[in-house]
Amino acid sequence: MTDKIADAAMAVADRETTIIAAQPESGPASIEGYYDAALAIPGMLRCIANAEAEGVDAHVIACFDDTGLDAARALARAPVVGIGEAGFHVASLICEKFAIVTTVEPSVPAIEHNLVRYGLASRCVCVRATGLAVLSLQDSNSQAYRRIAAEIESVKREHRAEAIVLGCAGMAGLAAALSKQCGLPVIDGVAAAVTLAQALVRLGLKTSKLGGYMPSLPKTIAALPSELVSRKPVSRKP
Amino acid sequence: MTDKIADAAMAVADRETTIIAAQPESGPASIEGYYDAALAIPGMLRCIANAEAEGVDAHVIACFDDTGLDAARALARAPVVGIGEAGFHVASLICEKFAIVTTVEPSVPAIEHNLVRYGLASRCVCVRATGLAVLSLQDSNSQAYRRIAAEIESVKREHRAEAIVLGCAGMAGLAAALSKQCGLPVIDGVAAAVTLAQALVRLGLKTSKLGGYMPSLPKTIAALPSELVSRKPVSRKP
Amino acid sequence: MTDKIADAAMAVADRETTIIAAQPESGPASIEGYYDAALAIPGMLRCIANAEAEGVDAHVIACFDDTGLDAARALARAPVVGIGEAGFHVASLICEKFAIVTTVEPSVPAIEHNLVRYGLASRCVCVRATGLAVLSLQDSNSQAYRRIAAEIESVKREHRAEAIVLGCAGMAGLAAALSKQCGLPVIDGVAAAVTLAQALVRLGLKTSKLGGYMPSLPKTIAALPSELVSRKPVSRKP
Amino acid sequence: MTDKIADAAMAVADRETTIIAAQPESGPASIEGYYDAALAIPGMLRCIANAEAEGVDAHVIACFDDTGLDAARALARAPVVGIGEAGFHVASLICEKFAIVTTVEPSVPAIEHNLVRYGLASRCVCVRATGLAVLSLQDSNSQAYRRIAAEIESVKREHRAEAIVLGCAGMAGLAAALSKQCGLPVIDGVAAAVTLAQALVRLGLKTSKLGGYMPSLPKTIAALPSELVSRKPVSRKP
Amino acid sequence: MTDKIADAAMAVADRETTIIAAQPESGPASIEGYYDAALAIPGMLRCIANAEAEGVDAHVIACFDDTGLDAARALARAPVVGIGEAGFHVASLICEKFAIVTTVEPSVPAIEHNLVRYGLASRCVCVRATGLAVLSLQDSNSQAYRRIAAEIESVKREHRAEAIVLGCAGMAGLAAALSKQCGLPVIDGVAAAVTLAQALVRLGLKTSKLGGYMPSLPKTIAALPSELVSRKPVSRKP
Amino acid sequence: MTDKIADAAMAVADRETTIIAAQPESGPASIEGYYDAALAIPGMLRCIANAEAEGVDAHVIACFDDTGLDAARALARAPVVGIGEAGFHVASLICEKFAIVTTVEPSVPAIEHNLVRYGLASRCVCVRATGLAVLSLQDSNSQAYRRIAAEIESVKREHRAEAIVLGCAGMAGLAAALSKQCGLPVIDGVAAAVTLAQALVRLGLKTSKLGGYMPSLPKTIAALPSELVSRKPVSRKP
Repeated sequence: MTDKIADAAMAVADRETTIIAAQPESGPASIEGYYDAALAIPGMLRCIANAEAEGVDAHVIACFDDTGLDAARALARAPVVGIGEAGFHVASLICEKFAIVTTVEPSVPAIEHNLVRYGLASRCVCVRATGLAVLSLQDSNSQAYRRIAAEIESVKREHRAEAIVLGCAGMAGLAAALSKQCGLPVIDGVAAAVTLAQALVRLGLKTSKLGGYMPSLPKTIAALPSELVSRKPVSRKP
Repeated sequence: MTDKIADAAMAVADRETTIIAAQPESGPASIEGYYDAALAIPGMLRCIANAEAEGVDAHVIACFDDTGLDAARALARAPVVGIGEAGFHVASLICEKFAIVTTVEPSVPAIEHNLVRYGLASRCVCVRATGLAVLSLQDSNSQAYRRIAAEIESVKREHRAEAIVLGCAGMAGLAAALSKQCGLPVIDGVAAAVTLAQALVRLGLKTSKLGGYMPSLPKTIAALPSELVSRKPVSRKP
Repeated sequence: MTDKIADAAMAVADRETTIIAAQPESGPASIEGYYDAALAIPGMLRCIANAEAEGVDAHVIACFDDTGLDAARALARAPVVGIGEAGFHVASLICEKFAIVTTVEPSVPAIEHNLVRYGLASRCVCVRATGLAVLSLQDSNSQAYRRIAAEIESVKREHRAEAIVLGCAGMAGLAAALSKQCGLPVIDGVAAAVTLAQALVRLGLKTSKLGGYMPSLPKTIAALPSELVSRKPVSRKP
Repeated sequence: MTDKIADAAMAVADRETTIIAAQPESGPASIEGYYDAALAIPGMLRCIANAEAEGVDAHVIACFDDTGLDAARALARAPVVGIGEAGFHVASLICEKFAIVTTVEPSVPAIEHNLVRYGLASRCVCVRATGLAVLSLQDSNSQAYRRIAAEIESVKREHRAEAIVLGCAGMAGLAAALSKQCGLPVIDGVAAAVTLAQALVRLGLKTSKLGGYMPSLPKTIAALPSELVSRKPVSRKP
Repeated sequence: MTDKIADAAMAVADRETTIIAAQPESGPASIEGYYDAALAIPGMLRCIANAEAEGVDAHVIACFDDTGLDAARALARAPVVGIGEAGFHVASLICEKFAIVTTVEPSVPAIEHNLVRYGLASRCVCVRATGLAVLSLQDSNSQAYRRIAAEIESVKREHRAEAIVLGCAGMAGLAAALSKQCGLPVIDGVAAAVTLAQALVRLGLKTSKLGGYMPSLPKTIAALPSELVSRKPVSRKP
Repeated sequence: MTDKIADAAMAVADRETTIIAAQPESGPASIEGYYDAALAIPGMLRCIANAEAEGVDAHVIACFDDTGLDAARALARAPVVGIGEAGFHVASLICEKFAIVTTVEPSVPAIEHNLVRYGLASRCVCVRATGLAVLSLQDSNSQAYRRIAAEIESVKREHRAEAIVLGCAGMAGLAAALSKQCGLPVIDGVAAAVTLAQALVRLGLKTSKLGGYMPSLPKTIAALPSELVSRKPVSRKP
């Protein structure tokens, strides 16, 4: 899946951009619900810390419920974009009402809470679960595709969705085909986040450190999962 | 601080209740902001898992920003109450508009997001930081007390707060004196959470497993912080 | 119905608690809609005044639309809990989204307004009327039970309700059976309110008198329904 | 005060309109807070019933917190307008943001709840209490006037209020002078309600009986305050 | 259509009122969506300016999406009422929840945005398009009538609408028949706006000039559509 | 001012991007309030139509209240970005709470309505007017700069703003200096909009034509301002 995400990111990268796709050393194999998300964050933060040390210009968190986004912004100097928020903001620029088509039911509440938190709940008519597990998306067989297309047709008809945000990094490669088949814009969060990260870099903007994202106060941290060493991330250039 | 929390819990425990105060083996010494909170969750979940194994009837998470509450509810069979939400719900039963007086600025945004998420933001007129660090509250010297009292008087006068929720487990012992001095109800979240947990047990209610709190799907979890062994928690009975 | 309510209250009462079930001398036989509610309040306030005179520690208003709750809080020194708000707050502690199953259509708007007023409307996915009149619930024959169970199944399926609050004091005895049959937590407002009232007493908290609940200014009150003498309330102890 | 209200109503009555000013036989001398309001409703409903029997075309409830408006709509066939809601709706037609200047603090929360309930809270920047008791307004001495004018200047400057709704029937006679002095529209709820009631009659519109205002189900009503006989109301014609 | 609108206005005009129905010289033949609305505004503002010069007491904008209402209020000294807002405010006085039945889909979003902006979105359960084009309503043949009646029955049944606002000036003549047939109040915006404009005149109220409606700052306006001369409007008196 | 806007756009343009800065032939010299905005739209739409004919990839509307954005999206095939919405969305990616510092008071309400409409009102703590007229910004003398800096310091201190969006295209050149001086990110809407437009083009996304932005139905448009011929726009390439 990390490879698929890297491919989606490369497809919209500027000529000046280098994409570094990193996978956390610790945490669950996929994130479906609150418990998985909580266990994934320390490993993800380790990736962010490593990338900061390497001097990257921006970070993208490629989990659709923007797992650990707040902590990452508090940790990093460079700007951080979540693929969920990226999908919502981009959709808001091309339609009045969008819908989200995601994987399994336990992923829905966190997405809905994010929409409220970001302010964009009024723009989203529906968060729909396909019942497809995240890992099942790794082989984009036609059955998963047909299921997603069917849900898109359904939210378009029943909720008057004008555009679709695909609610899982694993669906990245399907956006163009789904858009053509269903006759409305279909947005992949990974691609959206990369273009927004590029926009922030181009604008010279970094996360404000005045509010909740100010650096954590220095304190003793007991028994950090210190054995977790970052595997070498894949680095590619267009 | 764990002892002070245990004392506050004991003070409102029913005769049938046993309080077990546990401190996570891993995580930061205190939680002040998003980054600390993220690192504290895995250790806290380990505590929850241990307590489930011992067959407790209910869990209380004694961090005012209800760190990891969602993940804990997804993990546990027994009901889970956060001291933040407990304070908000109890305050809602005795006044129309309450205020929260907490520790440092970086703790404010998470509390505000929780109020929106729980639905009770319209009941809270103000979340006020005293500038007192969590750990400085461990010695409840008179200076910290005076600072908190001054902020209570301020939110009462400027925001017409009718009751106060103390926004840090470390302030637990001060509620009664502050209430008497400032002339309005002052609520300690730890005590509030214990009485609500007792209410849930008395009502025979457990967390619903139908929505976002359904058990996590079985999956490979890489490099879990497995070295973290729970220290023996303090168990006391009235 | 007053007996059934007393039974539900007794079932969750602490060993230290005495339940006094009182029925107003004046007012309609049941409350179904705005007009009934308005006529019931003076008699209910008389009950509150009587109980205050007897020195009770807390009041519970056993009407699901929390009829007269504001006036009662302004009148009483002891804390007052409505069974509607109690059901909503308790449900909020064990699920993300609950539904309410109540009696007749004219009762629905007042409940919906209360949800907005308390702040918890975002937690409630649906207020559903069964079409069962309040007084018909007094004989809990199987037909009423089946109707309620059918509506619970419906809101669970169509609105993804994760827990149910029973929206009428007359349904008190059915919660456990409905919970078992329908496979989700079912909350009786009377029991919920008694446990919350006990929590407030245990916490030493009373209604704040700083805002809208400050005592009424002294004034001439013309033609009060002075002929209404309180029948002796039933007093029981566990 | 009933006379002053009748005067304010007459001042905007159409040539075809007859104003009947009635004062309830029972209830408190003035309404300042939740407790007064609850006790005033049965007497007010008696007035509504009497007026229905006489075949009036519309009712106006001349209490700024719209006491008993829901019950009156459920009772009456003719349309019912509260002076609070009338002031809010009229203000919404002539400005973007208005403020309310009312009597004493305990009256503020009910007004704020009404604004939320009606939907117009987003249009109101402030509900300000002058500290003037309702009955003290009966002699419109210059001190009360100056106090109200001072509060209007304050909400205009601090909250950018563009128009003012006077939040008490007793302030009816002061609107024109205050508007001239303070340089912004000042709305008297009584006059506003009479013009809206006339509009509804002209449009041939009555309260819908499909929802919460459907007639109350027939039921036994115990110990109604039956001794309350309506004093002969004052009937005047332009 | 201008004649039909004049008829609807005349039907509710006071004896003292003269109705002047004016049609803009420029702009689209009908307004269905954002683009039409934008092109209609300059011509409508010219009508307002002409009417101001003639000294009218109030303006009504007879387009249901209240096209150009803000600009008209900034331009005019006399009060301005839109037929959309008029319908919403009047409906709010006779029911708790209303629905809007309008013409074509592209008209729906602007109406929904207005409801949010005015604050009354919480009162409207549904904005329903009939699929009937504005101009097709000019001959009120029975087919259009039947289509509107069918949609009214649908929103009444599915959304529990208690009253209907007809969402197009072209539907003005149908309100009474639809109300009788469908058994609930049906409101025509033109008639509603005329009665509200009369109310404002009776109350002596004009648009506040303190906020967004303050007169535009003097500035060069390039290439104004100066060739647009107002056709002589139809002036009628009851 | 059009030159200054072109400069700001060029500064963030990709190597592949050509910026075409066009000024409408008709309309007011600047937009300060509802009336100016209404008169500016037809000329702006003419510019959009011209650019569509030339086959541009995206449009940016360089007025901070996003004047005519809805109509432009209904008209254009290519995506359209307003500089107001662009500023809000970009600010949402780098902080939790931002403030807007704009020109004159009459511009504030339209900006506030947009924030509500877009969903981002909860992210904006304050819209502050400097009192500086739009055209006075054309010479960026130090006095205007100092005034803007003073307002930024004020909203940072009083409203805890974590980032600033400059609320006028004429302030474009000042962002970097203000950010450095005031110690928080300062966002220029023009630059933000250009980077977002580039993102949409890179993502291959166009405005959805399924909802309110569907093409206008064909109809007669009377007396269109047909004399308005587009001046040749300035075309520049990096």
